Order: sequence, then C-alpha cells, then structure tokens
Amino acid sequence: MRIDGRQNDELRKFNITRNYLLHPEGSVLIETGNTKVICTATIEEKVPPFLKGQGKGWVSAEYSMLPRSTHTRKIRNSSKGKIDGRTQEIQRLIGRSLRSIVDLEKLGERTIWIDCDVIQADGGTRTASITGAYVALMDALMKLKNEALIKEIPMNDYIAAVSVGIVNGEVLLDLCYEEDSSAKVDMNLIMTSKGEFIEIQGTGEEAPFSKAELNKLLEFGEKGILELIEFQKKALGY
Amino acid sequence: MRIDGRQNDELRKFNITRNYLLHPEGSVLIETGNTKVICTATIEEKVPPFLKGQGKGWVSAEYSMLPRSTHTRKIRNSSKGKIDGRTQEIQRLIGRSLRSIVDLEKLGERTIWIDCDVIQADGGTRTASITGAYVALMDALMKLKNEALIKEIPMNDYIAAVSVGIVNGEVLLDLCYEEDSSAKVDMNLIMTSKGEFIEIQGTGEEAPFSKAELNKLLEFGEKGILELIEFQKKALGY
Amino acid sequence: MRIDGRQNDELRKFNITRNYLLHPEGSVLIETGNTKVICTATIEEKVPPFLKGQGKGWVSAEYSMLPRSTHTRKIRNSSKGKIDGRTQEIQRLIGRSLRSIVDLEKLGERTIWIDCDVIQADGGTRTASITGAYVALMDALMKLKNEALIKEIPMNDYIAAVSVGIVNGEVLLDLCYEEDSSAKVDMNLIMTSKGEFIEIQGTGEEAPFSKAELNKLLEFGEKGILELIEFQKKALGY
Amino acid sequence: MRIDGRQNDELRKFNITRNYLLHPEGSVLIETGNTKVICTATIEEKVPPFLKGQGKGWVSAEYSMLPRSTHTRKIRNSSKGKIDGRTQEIQRLIGRSLRSIVDLEKLGERTIWIDCDVIQADGGTRTASITGAYVALMDALMKLKNEALIKEIPMNDYIAAVSVGIVNGEVLLDLCYEEDSSAKVDMNLIMTSKGEFIEIQGTGEEAPFSKAELNKLLEFGEKGILELIEFQKKALGY
Amino acid sequence: MRIDGRQNDELRKFNITRNYLLHPEGSVLIETGNTKVICTATIEEKVPPFLKGQGKGWVSAEYSMLPRSTHTRKIRNSSKGKIDGRTQEIQRLIGRSLRSIVDLEKLGERTIWIDCDVIQADGGTRTASITGAYVALMDALMKLKNEALIKEIPMNDYIAAVSVGIVNGEVLLDLCYEEDSSAKVDMNLIMTSKGEFIEIQGTGEEAPFSKAELNKLLEFGEKGILELIEFQKKALGY
Amino acid sequence: MRIDGRQNDELRKFNITRNYLLHPEGSVLIETGNTKVICTATIEEKVPPFLKGQGKGWVSAEYSMLPRSTHTRKIRNSSKGKIDGRTQEIQRLIGRSLRSIVDLEKLGERTIWIDCDVIQADGGTRTASITGAYVALMDALMKLKNEALIKEIPMNDYIAAVSVGIVNGEVLLDLCYEEDSSAKVDMNLIMTSKGEFIEIQGTGEEAPFSKAELNKLLEFGEKGILELIEFQKKALGY
Repeated sequence: MRIDGRQNDELRKFNITRNYLLHPEGSVLIETGNTKVICTATIEEKVPPFLKGQGKGWVSAEYSMLPRSTHTRKIRNSSKGKIDGRTQEIQRLIGRSLRSIVDLEKLGERTIWIDCDVIQADGGTRTASITGAYVALMDALMKLKNEALIKEIPMNDYIAAVSVGIVNGEVLLDLCYEEDSSAKVDMNLIMTSKGEFIEIQGTGEEAPFSKAELNKLLEFGEKGILELIEFQKKALGY
Repeated sequence: MRIDGRQNDELRKFNITRNYLLHPEGSVLIETGNTKVICTATIEEKVPPFLKGQGKGWVSAEYSMLPRSTHTRKIRNSSKGKIDGRTQEIQRLIGRSLRSIVDLEKLGERTIWIDCDVIQADGGTRTASITGAYVALMDALMKLKNEALIKEIPMNDYIAAVSVGIVNGEVLLDLCYEEDSSAKVDMNLIMTSKGEFIEIQGTGEEAPFSKAELNKLLEFGEKGILELIEFQKKALGY
Repeated sequence: MRIDGRQNDELRKFNITRNYLLHPEGSVLIETGNTKVICTATIEEKVPPFLKGQGKGWVSAEYSMLPRSTHTRKIRNSSKGKIDGRTQEIQRLIGRSLRSIVDLEKLGERTIWIDCDVIQADGGTRTASITGAYVALMDALMKLKNEALIKEIPMNDYIAAVSVGIVNGEVLLDLCYEEDSSAKVDMNLIMTSKGEFIEIQGTGEEAPFSKAELNKLLEFGEKGILELIEFQKKALGY
Repeated sequence: MRIDGRQNDELRKFNITRNYLLHPEGSVLIETGNTKVICTATIEEKVPPFLKGQGKGWVSAEYSMLPRSTHTRKIRNSSKGKIDGRTQEIQRLIGRSLRSIVDLEKLGERTIWIDCDVIQADGGTRTASITGAYVALMDALMKLKNEALIKEIPMNDYIAAVSVGIVNGEVLLDLCYEEDSSAKVDMNLIMTSKGEFIEIQGTGEEAPFSKAELNKLLEFGEKGILELIEFQKKALGY
Repeated sequence: MRIDGRQNDELRKFNITRNYLLHPEGSVLIETGNTKVICTATIEEKVPPFLKGQGKGWVSAEYSMLPRSTHTRKIRNSSKGKIDGRTQEIQRLIGRSLRSIVDLEKLGERTIWIDCDVIQADGGTRTASITGAYVALMDALMKLKNEALIKEIPMNDYIAAVSVGIVNGEVLLDLCYEEDSSAKVDMNLIMTSKGEFIEIQGTGEEAPFSKAELNKLLEFGEKGILELIEFQKKALGY
Repeated sequence: MRIDGRQNDELRKFNITRNYLLHPEGSVLIETGNTKVICTATIEEKVPPFLKGQGKGWVSAEYSMLPRSTHTRKIRNSSKGKIDGRTQEIQRLIGRSLRSIVDLEKLGERTIWIDCDVIQADGGTRTASITGAYVALMDALMKLKNEALIKEIPMNDYIAAVSVGIVNGEVLLDLCYEEDSSAKVDMNLIMTSKGEFIEIQGTGEEAPFSKAELNKLLEFGEKGILELIEFQKKALGY
C-alpha cells in the first residue's frame, strides 16, 4: 500500500486553474497532490540572436522554487549569484520538450517565455511544470491567434509529463517526495497523446535496472500521461 | 475620483490567508487589491557570524518578484547573477523593520528567515510584504513557544506598512500601480499600533513637497496602518 | 554636551574645495568634521538605453568607500564581486535626489555621472556626498554652458542633505560616527533652498519615534540644510 | 551507408591509453573515432560537508571542452564567469553514473574527483568521458588498495556509455558529430556488464519516437556497451 | 626637451605626506608630478589559511583607481563584478615586492594589508604605489613595535620603484602619461638602497630593444630609485 | 649537478608536434621536458570594439591548466567563477608578446585567438606556451595566405621564450618545477632571433639580485632562446 493509499499505477489528485494571474498572456496553477506550480507564458516579439532573420520562433523556459516550497529552506539562486545544476537541467528539459511539439516556423519570429515557479514541492515538480506549461503555452498561442498575429495554433500535439520509479521493488506512478527519496530507480517521461516519446530520463542511481523493469515503468508512465492529457483537454475546453 | 472608485484615504480590499503553505513554520498569502505576496517565516537554529555566542537572535528578509508578477516580464535576478538595487533596498527594509519590534534577546540564538515572494504586483508590494511578514513571523514565534523553545512571544508590538502619495495634487492612501506610476511624491510608512514610526521613506522624485503635504501624507498613512493592524489582529485570532 | 562640544543643532566644521582633481568636468572635496568625500561629475554624450532618442538627459551616481576610510578595513566590493546592499541604496539615493532638481529635458541627450568616493568616514557620508555632488554637478553644467552645449544651467534649485537623529533622548543635528552608532533614531534629509523636501528617510531601528520627535528632527534638519546651502552658494561664488 | 563506412550497429575505432599523465592517481586518454578525452581521477582525503563523519566516500566529476576541440571556437566557461547548462548536465551525469557502481561505504571517507577534458570533439564526448573515466577511476582505486588504504576495490561492476540515435530513419550506434547534428532522436545509454541500465536519456527534440524505435535503440546500445566493456577489461589487463 | 621641461634622467616633483588619514595604522599620500595615490597599511591579527600555524606573517596588497583619476571615466571593477587583469597584475606586483624585503618570520602570525588607491593618474601609478606603500608599511610596523607586539622592525632594506622607457629614441626616467602612451619600450624597476633588483619588468610592445638600451634604462632607473629612497628616509625622519 | 643531469645552460628535451588537432587553423603540442602544452590559433573575421573600422587586426590569448596538469588538483577557474590573477597575468603576457612581432596592419581586420592549454606542468608553462603559440600562429597565418586572404605572412621575426633563475647560487637555464620552486630569483625572457628583448620579467621574491647576476641570467636566456628558435624553424620546415 502506498503512503497516501493510492494504487501503484494511480495519479495523485490533479487540478489545473487557468488564468491564474492577471498580467501574463498565459498563466496556470497546476496542483498534483501537494505539489503546486505556477506556469506562465509570455510573448516577446523578438528571438534570440542565433535565430534572427530566419522567420522562426523560439520557446525558452525558466524554472525556480520558492525558498520554502521545500521542507528545509533552499537558498535562492539569486543569492548564490548563479543557477544551480539541477535548475539548469530542468529548465533545459522544459524548453526542449515544448519546442519539440511547437511548429516554430508557424509561430513566426517571436519567443514564448515559459516560467515555472514552484510554490510548494512534494515530488514531481519538473513533470508538473511541463504538464502545466503546456496549457499556459496554449493560452498564449490562442491569444496570438485571437489577435490575428498567427493564422493557426502552431501546436502539433498534446504533451504531458509524469514520473515513475521503483520503490521497495514496486513500480510506482507519480511519486510523491517521500516515495521519490527512497526510490532505487527514478524516471521522468514526456509523451504525446499518441503514446510516443518526447523524452525518457531514467536513472538507477542506487542500483541498475533491467529491461523488464524498464518496460513496466514505461507502461505505467504511458497510462499516467494519457490521463493527464485528458485533464489538459478538459481544462482547455476540448 | 480614484481609478477604482475608492476614497482618497481608503485602503484596497485586503485579505490574509494564514498557513498558506505546507512546509514553512509560518506562511501567509496577503492580498491587497490585485497585489498578492506569499510571506513565509523559517526558523534556523543558528545566527550570522557577527552574532555568534551573544545569546541574541536575528531576523533576516529576502524579497523577490515572479517574472510575470508584473505587466512586462522581469528578468530573474538569478539569471542576471546579481540582486538588483531595488530588491536589495526592499529586503533590507523588511528585515530592519521587523527586527525593530522583535526582542532579539528573548528570541535566543536563532534566525528567523522571512521570504516575501510577489505572485502578482499592482503597487505596494513592499508594504504588503511587511504587513504579511508580520503575521508569518508571529506564526513562527508561536510555534517556538508551543515547542517550549522560548518562554514568551518576543514581540513588542504590532507593525504594518502602507504607501501614501500625491497624485494630481491629491494625497492618496494605498496606491495601486497606475496611481503610483504617476505620483509626484511617493512615501512608505511603517508604524506600530501606538501610531509611532518605525520607518518613513518619502521621495519627491519629480517635485519637492512641503511640510503641509508631509503632514497630510502622515495622517492618511496612520489611518491606513491602524486599519491594517486590525486585520492582522483578526487574522491572528485576537 | 556633545562629544565634540557642539550645540545639538550645530553643524560640524565644513569645507568645500572645488576643482580638486585635474581630469573631471566637476570635482569637489567635501569635508564635514572628519568625513571627507571626493565628488566628481563626468559628462558622457549618451544616455542609458531606456532614454535613447527622447531628447532627455540622465544623472547617475556611484558611491564607494576606500577600504580604510573606516575604523576597521572594509573589504572592497570589487573583491567580493558584487556591490553590497548599503552601497546600492546610497548610490540610488544620490542619483534620485540630484535628478529631482535637474531639468533633464534641458540637459539634452547626455548623462552626468556622479562619483562619490569616501576618503575618510566619520558619519554622514551619504549626506556629504549629496551636498558635495551638487557642487561638482554645477561645475560640469557650467562647463557645458561655457562650451555652448546647453543654453542655460538646467538646475531648478539648490539641494543639500544632512543627518539628524536621537541619541540618549536628545535630538541632534549632523551626527558624527560615534553619535550615529548609538542613535535610537536615524534620519537623512534632503531639502531645497525653499525648505521643501526631496527625500526623508527616517528609521527607528532600535525604537519607534513619535510625531513630536519627528517634528523636532525635521526642524533641526531644515536649519542645517539651509546653512549648508549657504556654503554651497559661497563655494560657487554666488 | 554511414559517412565513415560503418555498419549501423558498429562502434568507431576505439583506444584507451592508461597512465597518460604523470601526476594524477589515474589518467586515461580515450579515443573513439576523432573524439579524444583526457580522463583523470584524483584522490582527496576528505568528503563534501553533507557527508562528513559518516564513514562514506564520494565521487564527483567535472567536464570541460578545450576551446578548439570543436569546429568553431567555444568561449571558455571561465571567461563567461559561469558554467553553462550543457556542461553542468554532463558533469552531473558522469558523477551520478560512476557513484552508482562504486561502493561508497567501502571507499571510506574520501572523494575521488573525476576530470574529463575534451581535447577533440567529434560527437559522443559525454559517453566517451564515462567510459574512460571508469578506467581512470579503477586505476585510482587500485592505487588506494596497493597503499593498503582500502581492503578491496569498492567497485560493483563495469560500466560503459554509448550514444545511439535515429538519422534519416535509420537507428545508428555511436554517432559522430555529423550524424548527431542531423539526428531526429538522440539517446545516451549507460549500462553495466550484465546488460542492466544505469541511465537512459533519450530525446526526440525534432520528432517523437515510438516504442518500437526505442527497443531498437536499446538493442544497438547494449551491443555497443558490451563491446566497450571488453575494451575496458583489456586495457585494465583482465 | 621633455613635455614638462625635465632632463631625461630627472624625476618629477615628489612629495610624501605621512599620517594622511585618521584611521589606518599607516597612511600616506604620495604625489609625483600629477600622480596622487593614497597608500594605507592595515594590521590584521591573522594570516591566510595556507600560512596558519607557521608563526609567519604575510603582506597582501590591493590597488584601485578612482573612476575619474583618469582622463576618461573608468568603469569601477565593482560594477563589472570582477577585477580586471591590469589591476590584478599590479596588486600582485605590489604585494610581492613588499614581501621580498619584510622578514615575515619576525613579523609574526599577522597580515599587513596594503591598499593603494589612485586619486589622480598621470603615469607611474604602480611605481608610486610601491614607493608610497613602503612608507605606510613602515608606519604600521613602527606602531607594532611601539605596542611591543614585535621586538624589532622586520624590514631588511628600503625599496622604491620607478618607471623608465624609450620615447622617440630617447631613454627617459619617470614617464608621465603623455610620454608613457607614446613609449616604444616601457619598464618598471623596483630596487633596494644597495642598488639591487627586486623586480624588472620591461616590455617592448611596439618594438624589441637591445642590450645597450636595456643597460641605459637600468642606469636611469637606479639613479631615480636612489633619489626616491632619499625622499623616503627624509619622510620617515632618518 | 642538476636534478636531471643537465648542464646549467642546457635546455630540456624539446619537441613540437604541428597539426596536433583536427579543427583549429593552427595547433601545436609543445613538449619541453615533462611540460606539455596544446597551443591553438583560431582565425575570427572580426576585431574587438576598440579596433573596429581601423583596418587593423588583433592577437588575443587565453591560458589555462587542466586540473591535474599539476601535482595536486587545481580548482578550475570556471568553478570559481573568475579567472585567477596568475592566469590573467600569463594570458596578457602571451598576447602582448605575440602582438609585438605581428604586423597588425597587414593582418587586416581580423583577430587571431591563441589558446594555450597546459596538459602537464613541470615548470616553464608560460614560456612553453609562447614558444609553441608562435608556431600555431604561423600555421594560421600561412592558412590565411594560402586562401589569399592576406598577401604576405605579417610576421616580423621569430620569437621564443624561456625561463632562467638562480637556484642554490647557480644561474640555471630552463627550470623544471623542482628547481623553480626553490629558486631565489626567477626570470622569464622573450626574445627575437636577433637577440633583442620583447619582454624581461625578473623577480627576486626571496632575495634581491645584483647587476652581475642579471647579466649572467640574460646570457643564459639568450643562448636558450636562440636554440628554441632553431627548433621552431625546423618544425616549420625552414
């Protein structure tokens, strides 16, 4: 039995609040169990230097945790004067996975900035960030379309992300912090609504894992992601 | 008539949510009009080097804005690799004003970290941070007392903060962003429940102001602060 | 009786040396008691990006202390790789107060850089910086006028700054370091020759202060500032 | 046919030179095709603060590229004053994967520093770094054993790493730079001699990939890794 | 004929003011022509980590220029967030040359911090810094002796420094800025009262120089340094 | 007798490998005794801002040591977030000395970047860097000429560099690390094939040195440099 009484392949209680903030072009509060992340999308009418003049757009992401989103206070990256490695890894992952389903040519020469700020952390903040950022990004794209700045929503598919892992020999879906911190294997999956992979990141830091375990992890992950995509569709009114 | 229909000496709609987050020793969501700030208090059982071994405690504050708390996206201090001057000024102000009413000797050799993170900004974020941080700080101190780590709550009085200013020749209480950005004079006041001053910061960046104007600013400010302290008392159950 | 035998409302011995350095467009050594600050004004024929093309000028200030301007050696900001909060606060204050009396439109699209370098510190370095910087700024503006780059001196009034405080229950004008370090209330005032306020910054870090105390602080401050403006006028030959 | 005439599941020409440098406790030049990396292992008789006093050791890794290891000159991280995200990601990966097969308790309270410096880059530098670092690490551990500082080599298995990808619809093993830069799917695999996974990192930045493609990628990767482990064994004299 | 009418082997007008500042253990204003540097010496009762417990002392130096010591405003190193290469080179030179004549064992386990702050620059700031710092250092050492913290002044000899160069084919002593900026060869010499070398740094950036030219440069340099040492002796009252 | 059996005026075993790396326009492995440095030259078709539009070129140099090029592991400058003083000094020296023999006007408006990366250090890394960088620079210039981007090789002479020093009272040429670390006097010389000086940097950190000692140091240095220039010529095929 899991800590919070869930089945091994069961997601945590999930909620998406659209238009959570007043100013951004897209803004979402995503809640999955006790994990809460504010995801915003900002439209900027220019692109990074390496893309200038190519008629293509860009999606860039930043991720941060409030100091007391976690059990013990985390020192701010701004106080340290540099962005720690974990944060860099996560924001690169968010940006890369969103870019993979946006049609950057159709987006036109503009950048969408995605900001994922973790208000409360209980495991799975990076996957929740991606799942929520997708919705904020859609809102920003619809705003562009409503203002006739683009002709169609330049989005190729839905994507969502979830964590899976092996804890005490059991394969589990959507790990909370306590499960995550005792996991032998930890995997983050990002998939489309067609069940195809955008990203697989699996780590056996404490012990290697077998092909059979991998397959079960992928199976649970796919199940969770397809459910999350249903939540996204409902939130977006489809 | 003000933009939002308020009287010149009227506060915006105000709300305090205690225990807003799961992990911190004290955590508050403060809402004043459209301005929303998460204030947390963290207990750390050590003091900065300059206080070591003196049996006294410390209160330290950090302040930050989410990139899209504002109309246009604000670049993160962590991305710039340094904390901008405005942020430094504000976090020094928050820490200084809270230290002025805490009995640091009775607090004992520990630090209370105050984190004020602006989720949405519509003017008055620094004063809202102080007013909210006071409540989060009280919650952390009560936790220390409940755990018998201190004998009494080492707090000398209530404090709250508010902005006043002169806009189009009118003295106004609790300026929203639009008022603030066209103010000729801008003042932040921090006062106790006895109507005494902790901090006065008044700036006539666009034009100097007279003694008479100063007096009216102080009068409006005092009125607002005493009302805010009533909200604090109610939130804390007094 | 004060440490140095002064009356409570008496300034320290004061001196301004114009043209103190060879290279700058304006340069002043200001001495008030044992506090000595070199203030320079530099003309740069461009403005910060946010002002480009608006035909308006800018005044920007930097402040620094020599490591041994103080009793114990202060580590350089350049060695720490970042500017400390107190320094940022002071240089923002100097720039803001000088901009408030310069007619930036008449200045034209150029920047005046103000540098205040404290050679010796004995309290009141930020207020001495402002009082001295005013004179250096005037010298730079006169140079612009002499070179026919501007038609008139774009300065609306005189300004000077002074500290006041409450020490052992007494309100004192122009605190030296020893007084300042035992002050219960500490206030910096910047005023014009008409007795109007540019900036009020009062802090009761150790104890709140009353309206009556505030009024006495303002009275002493005004007296001191009007005397300092007389010194400025004399130094400038008016 | 591949650019360099290889079969789709064929590794590039591979070589390991042990004791490549004079000073380090372990040092290896690893060459795979035109990719050349110097991997060193340094023994330090202390552990990071979070491990102090627990009797456990640590393995930490740093990765860097010479500015002209690449086609165009790469600006040094030291010149930029910060470590870029890609570098951070890679050095975290190297450290994590090596820690997963070292018995940190048997290592005792000491740190092994792994430095991977890319002399020449032609794709696969991160996987070459791991494969080479394993051998340098073994040399350092053998030195510890020879000096009787540890009783047995605290290594649980062999590990090696390789890249696989999908280029023009073909699954390829051990991509060179030209293949890598046109790959639709890019995957790095780290596995043990038993064919178990330490790390899977697969990215479909340009297009998602299916379960069938994933299986073929894993099959090719396992083949390559088992061959690389044979090279490691031979280099180490087993 | 030189710009300022000097002979080729003639020093500029030179002056040393001892006890220039109130707080430091040693402080000197050195003026050579229009170059003015404040040199201070600070005693700190601890040593850098690498010397701890060895009973030996240390001398460390920092050098900085006021932004408007120069013709055009120099951006502060603190604003850039790092110390530029030229500054690092100079402060390493000052520290190294002073350490070479101090008996660090007799100094005892303490550090003397030397701060050289250029108030006005007209060539030769690094050599003036060394010549002046010597006197400030002597004052700090005498203070230690007067307080009976050391038994004798741990100084082995006098040292002074001067620049020499080749301008328009002429070897010149003590170059001012205008000469320095058109010099083909530029050399800084640090010597003792016995005419021995502490440091020779000669650069033919625009053209190489011959052995014969080197000898003449050294001859002029020695003449200048012996004169400077006479000034030091007189300033110190010998 | 020297540690490695050499005569006092004898160079270490010396080797230059041209075209050491695949990508750079010039790349050299220089080995002198156990010291090994990779020197590369990169052509960039632009100049630093201060040279823009003047039709002149530039040569800029960077220097770095692999962490385990030395006996104990050296922390990377990138990890420290800043370039240490010694590194800055060395890269300024390399750039300055190479610029002194390149005809920057004939080079045209382009920059040659020199990178010197020390693979293994046993004394004399900065002088080996210069001697090797000269050859890499020549290779890059010949490439420019072969591509008809310049009409002639814009190089005025050969230059090489060597260290000399005084160890146990003996003047020695080309010091290895063990000699260098016990040297009383340490000197680096950069000279042309005509025996003229580009740079002399001599330091008597532990003891001053006399004119007679200087002359002997220069004599040994010249002998060594002329031999090194013969090696350069041979490597370049002259």
